[in-house]
Amino acid sequence: MSNMYDSANDIEKAIRNSVEFKELVESYHNVMNDEEAKQLFEAFRDTQMNLQEKQMEGIEISQEEIDRARQIVEKVQQNEMISKLIEKEQRLNLIIDDISRIITRPLEDLYEY
Amino acid sequence: MSNMYDSANDIEKAIRNSVEFKELVESYHNVMNDEEAKQLFEAFRDTQMNLQEKQMEGIEISQEEIDRARQIVEKVQQNEMISKLIEKEQRLNLIIDDISRIITRPLEDLYEY
Ligand SMILES: [Ca+2]
Ligand SMILES: [Ca+2]
Repeated sequence: MSNMYDSANDIEKAIRNSVEFKELVESYHNVMNDEEAKQLFEAFRDTQMNLQEKQMEGIEISQEEIDRARQIVEKVQQNEMISKLIEKEQRLNLIIDDISRIITRPLEDLYEY
Repeated sequence: MSNMYDSANDIEKAIRNSVEFKELVESYHNVMNDEEAKQLFEAFRDTQMNLQEKQMEGIEISQEEIDRARQIVEKVQQNEMISKLIEKEQRLNLIIDDISRIITRPLEDLYEY
């Protein structure tokens, strides 16, 4: 058991030291240090979370909300700093997904056969 | 990078060799080898997945569906083999959640500060 958590801590350290994480931190700081990008990124985050929450709770999303979300996504795509940040997030998330898939393989194998 | 995946593979092996996983496998086989428990467990799984899917897609769940799900849950709770299986699943999931939390700590730290 302790072995398992040791390995998890090794992965955590390896992630922290990875180029992918360092680039993500840099991109995040770039956005946070630019007032316009910061506000837009936070609006994007809030909107995504809000829509996700409504969807999960089965609350209907109005056309107005969809339009507003689309406008923010368009602005985000035009902002190079935020686009870069999202790209770096996705890259790191792919790594974390890979790791999760490896770790949960025993469960998958059990239920699949 | 390779270091990260090596550690993930170490965790996978450690999970496979853990008492918790071995007990889960045993509980699962016990259920699968009992026709009544197997059918009830599969009905339980199907119902849970069906309701979850509807919830995620924002489809309303009828009172009839809620009642049917509740009946299955009651039967499941009365079945010792299935109750044991669910308990073993939850125990292993706690471990996997712990590991996931450790691994995603760098991301949490980044966005929290
Ligand atoms: Ca500024
Ligand atoms: Ca039987």
